[in-house]
Amino acid sequence: MTRFFRRVQKKLALPPGTVEYAGEKKVEKVTISVINYDEIHFEEKELASAEECFPYKDTKHVSWINVNGLHETKVLEELGDHFGLHPLILEDIVNTHQRPKMEDHQKYIYIVLKMLHHDVDKNLVTAEQVSIVLGFNYVLSFQERPGDLFEPVRERIRKAKVRIRKMGADYLAYALIDAIVDNYFVILEKFGEQVESLEEGLVDNPAPSQLEQIHQVKREMIFLRKSIWPLREVISSLERGETKLIRKGMGVFLRDVYDHTIQVIDAVESFRDVTSGMQDLYLSSISNKMNEVMKVLTIIATIFIPITFVAGIYGMNFEFMPELKWRWSYPIVWAIIAGVFFGMLTYFRRKRWI
Amino acid sequence: MTRFFRRVQKKLALPPGTVEYAGEKKVEKVTISVINYDEIHFEEKELASAEECFPYKDTKHVSWINVNGLHETKVLEELGDHFGLHPLILEDIVNTHQRPKMEDHQKYIYIVLKMLHHDVDKNLVTAEQVSIVLGFNYVLSFQERPGDLFEPVRERIRKAKVRIRKMGADYLAYALIDAIVDNYFVILEKFGEQVESLEEGLVDNPAPSQLEQIHQVKREMIFLRKSIWPLREVISSLERGETKLIRKGMGVFLRDVYDHTIQVIDAVESFRDVTSGMQDLYLSSISNKMNEVMKVLTIIATIFIPITFVAGIYGMNFEFMPELKWRWSYPIVWAIIAGVFFGMLTYFRRKRWI
Amino acid sequence: MTRFFRRVQKKLALPPGTVEYAGEKKVEKVTISVINYDEIHFEEKELASAEECFPYKDTKHVSWINVNGLHETKVLEELGDHFGLHPLILEDIVNTHQRPKMEDHQKYIYIVLKMLHHDVDKNLVTAEQVSIVLGFNYVLSFQERPGDLFEPVRERIRKAKVRIRKMGADYLAYALIDAIVDNYFVILEKFGEQVESLEEGLVDNPAPSQLEQIHQVKREMIFLRKSIWPLREVISSLERGETKLIRKGMGVFLRDVYDHTIQVIDAVESFRDVTSGMQDLYLSSISNKMNEVMKVLTIIATIFIPITFVAGIYGMNFEFMPELKWRWSYPIVWAIIAGVFFGMLTYFRRKRWI
Amino acid sequence: MTRFFRRVQKKLALPPGTVEYAGEKKVEKVTISVINYDEIHFEEKELASAEECFPYKDTKHVSWINVNGLHETKVLEELGDHFGLHPLILEDIVNTHQRPKMEDHQKYIYIVLKMLHHDVDKNLVTAEQVSIVLGFNYVLSFQERPGDLFEPVRERIRKAKVRIRKMGADYLAYALIDAIVDNYFVILEKFGEQVESLEEGLVDNPAPSQLEQIHQVKREMIFLRKSIWPLREVISSLERGETKLIRKGMGVFLRDVYDHTIQVIDAVESFRDVTSGMQDLYLSSISNKMNEVMKVLTIIATIFIPITFVAGIYGMNFEFMPELKWRWSYPIVWAIIAGVFFGMLTYFRRKRWI
Amino acid sequence: MTRFFRRVQKKLALPPGTVEYAGEKKVEKVTISVINYDEIHFEEKELASAEECFPYKDTKHVSWINVNGLHETKVLEELGDHFGLHPLILEDIVNTHQRPKMEDHQKYIYIVLKMLHHDVDKNLVTAEQVSIVLGFNYVLSFQERPGDLFEPVRERIRKAKVRIRKMGADYLAYALIDAIVDNYFVILEKFGEQVESLEEGLVDNPAPSQLEQIHQVKREMIFLRKSIWPLREVISSLERGETKLIRKGMGVFLRDVYDHTIQVIDAVESFRDVTSGMQDLYLSSISNKMNEVMKVLTIIATIFIPITFVAGIYGMNFEFMPELKWRWSYPIVWAIIAGVFFGMLTYFRRKRWI
Repeated sequence: MTRFFRRVQKKLALPPGTVEYAGEKKVEKVTISVINYDEIHFEEKELASAEECFPYKDTKHVSWINVNGLHETKVLEELGDHFGLHPLILEDIVNTHQRPKMEDHQKYIYIVLKMLHHDVDKNLVTAEQVSIVLGFNYVLSFQERPGDLFEPVRERIRKAKVRIRKMGADYLAYALIDAIVDNYFVILEKFGEQVESLEEGLVDNPAPSQLEQIHQVKREMIFLRKSIWPLREVISSLERGETKLIRKGMGVFLRDVYDHTIQVIDAVESFRDVTSGMQDLYLSSISNKMNEVMKVLTIIATIFIPITFVAGIYGMNFEFMPELKWRWSYPIVWAIIAGVFFGMLTYFRRKRWI
Repeated sequence: MTRFFRRVQKKLALPPGTVEYAGEKKVEKVTISVINYDEIHFEEKELASAEECFPYKDTKHVSWINVNGLHETKVLEELGDHFGLHPLILEDIVNTHQRPKMEDHQKYIYIVLKMLHHDVDKNLVTAEQVSIVLGFNYVLSFQERPGDLFEPVRERIRKAKVRIRKMGADYLAYALIDAIVDNYFVILEKFGEQVESLEEGLVDNPAPSQLEQIHQVKREMIFLRKSIWPLREVISSLERGETKLIRKGMGVFLRDVYDHTIQVIDAVESFRDVTSGMQDLYLSSISNKMNEVMKVLTIIATIFIPITFVAGIYGMNFEFMPELKWRWSYPIVWAIIAGVFFGMLTYFRRKRWI
Repeated sequence: MTRFFRRVQKKLALPPGTVEYAGEKKVEKVTISVINYDEIHFEEKELASAEECFPYKDTKHVSWINVNGLHETKVLEELGDHFGLHPLILEDIVNTHQRPKMEDHQKYIYIVLKMLHHDVDKNLVTAEQVSIVLGFNYVLSFQERPGDLFEPVRERIRKAKVRIRKMGADYLAYALIDAIVDNYFVILEKFGEQVESLEEGLVDNPAPSQLEQIHQVKREMIFLRKSIWPLREVISSLERGETKLIRKGMGVFLRDVYDHTIQVIDAVESFRDVTSGMQDLYLSSISNKMNEVMKVLTIIATIFIPITFVAGIYGMNFEFMPELKWRWSYPIVWAIIAGVFFGMLTYFRRKRWI
Repeated sequence: MTRFFRRVQKKLALPPGTVEYAGEKKVEKVTISVINYDEIHFEEKELASAEECFPYKDTKHVSWINVNGLHETKVLEELGDHFGLHPLILEDIVNTHQRPKMEDHQKYIYIVLKMLHHDVDKNLVTAEQVSIVLGFNYVLSFQERPGDLFEPVRERIRKAKVRIRKMGADYLAYALIDAIVDNYFVILEKFGEQVESLEEGLVDNPAPSQLEQIHQVKREMIFLRKSIWPLREVISSLERGETKLIRKGMGVFLRDVYDHTIQVIDAVESFRDVTSGMQDLYLSSISNKMNEVMKVLTIIATIFIPITFVAGIYGMNFEFMPELKWRWSYPIVWAIIAGVFFGMLTYFRRKRWI
Repeated sequence: MTRFFRRVQKKLALPPGTVEYAGEKKVEKVTISVINYDEIHFEEKELASAEECFPYKDTKHVSWINVNGLHETKVLEELGDHFGLHPLILEDIVNTHQRPKMEDHQKYIYIVLKMLHHDVDKNLVTAEQVSIVLGFNYVLSFQERPGDLFEPVRERIRKAKVRIRKMGADYLAYALIDAIVDNYFVILEKFGEQVESLEEGLVDNPAPSQLEQIHQVKREMIFLRKSIWPLREVISSLERGETKLIRKGMGVFLRDVYDHTIQVIDAVESFRDVTSGMQDLYLSSISNKMNEVMKVLTIIATIFIPITFVAGIYGMNFEFMPELKWRWSYPIVWAIIAGVFFGMLTYFRRKRWI
């Protein structure tokens, strides 16, 4: 359940706006990288300290400053000071259990997203918070640890003569969001395969392990839903946004990523519906099985218990049991037994039990 | 589950706006056909290449260019260039897992729809994406493979003096949408018959195969819902649309197809409710059956187990068992057995088990 | 399921606006009757053909033209021509699987309603489509077959000095809608009685037939809901309507029939909730019964099986069984049996099984 | 179910606006009482006829005319005539199955409320309709029978120097509504106690009677919800109301009673959720019990059936059974029996059945 | 259920606006403390009577007057008189079963919140009402008993040079709300741990106690939801608020606490979904277990009952049973027994029961 929310308890005594990292320390050292580019110019380097990226705030080119690791408060505070970020935003960046949201602070837009990872071993989806600050000609991105999701974007920038090199910081922010949303499809696809393989043999051979897996998929869908659902509103308000930071021409791109988000949400809802249906099916199959087991038991018991009784009767040792001495007793008993046997069979056939 | 969403994974490394077909290759060769008509004029031909249809962009008549097969990127890009389509739209046309949507790009309207097929063998509904681009006096339609749904529309155009020959490109687009929506009714009708035949004998003779079929109908309804639901908004925004591409007089036609869409959605929702009810009924019937089986078992066992015990007692071989030598022991034992037998029967009758 | 939607398949090849009756032919001959009235004037007659009613379009009085039977396309097309109805409206009139709706066509208002019948034998509710066209001083009503729901309205018109004689065509249309909505209460009342009698004995004596009846009520409620729900919006838009065809003073009457519609919808929702509760109760009762049956079986079996074993032991024929010759063996065996018996009873009592 | 809605069938043939009482006759005679007051003046009397209250329509003081009993059409029609009530309102007053609603008729406001009674014997909630007509300086209230809910309001008016004596007719109407809403809390409190006592022992000792009670609470909650939910909108529109009949200063009082209504609705919803949870718990407990019963049966049967078989074998009377003559056969059989016995016990312990 | 709502019954006879404490008396004596501060000035003291805090209404500094204990009507009425609170607000302060709400009374804003406590012993969440009155430069807070939630806020004020000392009364009110909302996270965290430990072993070893705990968590979530949900709207209307009492700069802080509230609500909803899933899982596990138990019983019974019958046959004492004297009878019987035994085993293996 810790994935569903967590807020560090010690925080409680601190005033609002305190910058203290809420997650586990996932990287040893905070690393900062910068890419500075326009249609012609391209520069990429790793920075040793926060101060080194200050010059990139006001260049003629687009600057993308990416911070991996959030546990060094000082680095973040220096960055925040220089880029004029509100203390509460710094708090949100490090407090990694935010809901996806978008805040328009006039001079910059602050966007929180969830980057999802599918832990194959535990079959768990874990979320990592990504904060994006979009300024006039710079983008700051904050990740809990170095990830490879942004690598394709970097690759595209490194190439000359691609669209991204001709566009501004707003397109860069869009490209980052698009990379994160595209990754949701990868995760859903894995679940899709899992659900598909679960569905087979659910009726014929229901096993408790399947049930547990269905439950797990359902729980992960609750988690995915919680992580992705608010994104819809985030992108929708970016699209509608009256901010000057996002140029007119971005509308068609934002609508595209919006459509993808809706597709993801739709798929999550469909998964929920389908898995609910599968759970019902599982339960019904168990009931069916039980019914079948019961029938076998009942058929055997109701045939043999009465005829065993008949045999029991003539196993008694009374001295005065005239039948014991009759010549045809034994065949008659067999006839009775056969009568019970076939009578029962007829009864069961009529009840459609066999 | 692949029907519920699929986005090619390799796509992830590509920049937005890349045109690469997302589906399976369903036809060998991309074919392009054009119909150029107005009240008097009529011309229909198959085209060998994309270039051949360029002249049809600006004729005085209405041009309907239909493309079957989406895997030849070059053809689409040439068409897109000539008709001035945005790269993201080309991406949407080939990425065949879009949600139904409508985008107004001033000079043309882009509409995505789902054409549904009912695969009788697997009892599966599959969706094929149809893209419609409505320009001032042309309509482009893109299908994954040649289908017969648009044939009736073609038939109508071929006849002289019908309404469609007197109307513009907007009416043609409406006619295509109407053909697709009408097809939904055919699919629903098949499900309707299936549900109806399922409902019979559900109480008297519940079988696991019925359950599986109910589950299947439910799952198909989730799929149908997902494919059709957004259409409502699509048509509603066409109707409200402030675009000049759709003339005033189209309102009544669009409202008509809107009503049909609502009818389909209503029917899908009703199917969901009815099948849910049937599943409950199935489960209850299984419970009933099990209860009945249990009663038979219990009646037989509780009558015969005690009297078999009585017989067992006098089957013991102790030397000192005075009853064994009594004259009336045997009849008395029978009397006891009869007592237990009829006592039990009375008990069960009072409990209303028999 | 055919009640839930049906659209004739052959229709599919026809262009929109084709007038072809979608239902079964319910009357032999189409009959047309007209009532022409105002405060003083009153005239009522059966018409032989569509032409005969043309003069009634523009009289100084209110004209109510009622058509029973929709299968004669020619009659409808003549009427439609004369009264200036849009071809799509004619299509809607004969295509009897419309959702209730209201369309404002400036010169007239087109209203579709569902008239419900409760088929007592099959315990099914069937819907018949009623189309009402309200013009400036005429009302056209189209029914699939002659019904007695409009008879009370006719009766009221026949009387002099009643409100309806003083009011216009809009009041007449309202009176027809009101008659249809009032009839919903009659149907609900029948279901109410059925539900009430079902509820009795559901816990004490649950029977599969009850379950089937509950399922039926639920299914009928899905149908009722589907037929009535859209009516709410219909009447609401009539009330708000900016049309001149409905006079100001009608507001209070329309609000009244709106309230009744809400009452019906409320009742349908309550029925759904109550029957859902009853189904849960039924299932729980079955579980209870099964549990009780199980207990009886278990008590009998667990008491007698062990003691039968004891008897079985001393029924063995070994030569060297010292107990067989002991003097007190037999009483001791009885003591053991009694011990098991009463021990078990105590155990069950502690478990509160008996 | 008759509580959920009822509309007298004979009504159907009557035109809208007919005044005929829809309920059972709950009092012998219609009684009318009037209280006429302002800060100084106070007058209270029982009236013999409708005419006697006519003078109270236009006094300088506030007049509260309360009518108990709705079956005397004439009395209501006289009142309606004098106070200028619309015929449809008179119909609503006597047709006691209205939904709570508020209608602003310029010169007066018509409010319908449900006064709830908890019938302790049957554990049923019954609703009685109260109609309130608020005019400029008078309030008419119509009850089906004399109730004691309004008595506290009367008591307050009788005292001098209380707020109600200083306020107008609008405050009086508010006080009546407040008295009715306060009564809802009393009813909920009774259900609260019932639910609380039901919850105890639900897991340890589930009994069918508890289930029936849970079902009853759920059904009553459906009824309460239906009766109270629309009240929210009623009071909300009174608060927003642009009528001059309600003075500005009333806002804070109406908001207060609105808050109470929301509290009641909240509580009803919580009850529904809690009782649903209890029903699930009940069913689970039954399943648990059944499982436990099954285990006992299975343990006893699977231990004793095999060893009884062993005993049965050596109860056979074949001449050639060498074991019968062996010296150690009997102890060996006992050893086998002990082996089966303890083997089974170990098996069950491993399965955690015992 | 008393937590879900309670309104003292005796209240019913009292007029609206009566100040009478609705809860249990939780402290012996009402205590009043005041903190008066601005950036430089700081003063904190305990007051002996309500009069002593009157001077703090109009100081140049911010005054925070905190009242612990609500049972002394006189104290509250004196405060209410001096600070100009509406009688209905005093009623709401002492009537501690309000829904969270916010009322703007021009000169002050009245806010009701729920402070939650997690009673570890009973595993119950209890709610305590906190009322906050925000005036121009004062904040009144009313608690049912002294709590430690506000202590961190006090601590912060006591320090010089912190943000809170530089801000106005609106920031103080925000800090109090923030402290209460932060506390919700602590409570949710405890539930999170409980749910997490419940989830383990639910499939392998389902126990009734787990079910009861799941039910408890669900019930507490219903309670939490009821207590927290309305807070969303409260803070949202504070944020939007057009009041002058809340300065522009507060927007970002209020949005922050709003986000936290949404997070809490999200978590509560997720908990509800997850626990529902767990309950389903529990039930399914029980079904699985039962099915397994049934299989064991059926296997044992269907194997041994027929062969016991065979043994019973040859335990009969008829004189004329030829088999008894045959040489190979006994081995043949054993062969039959072995045949039944292995036949059954094969059958069960084919059915995949073993």
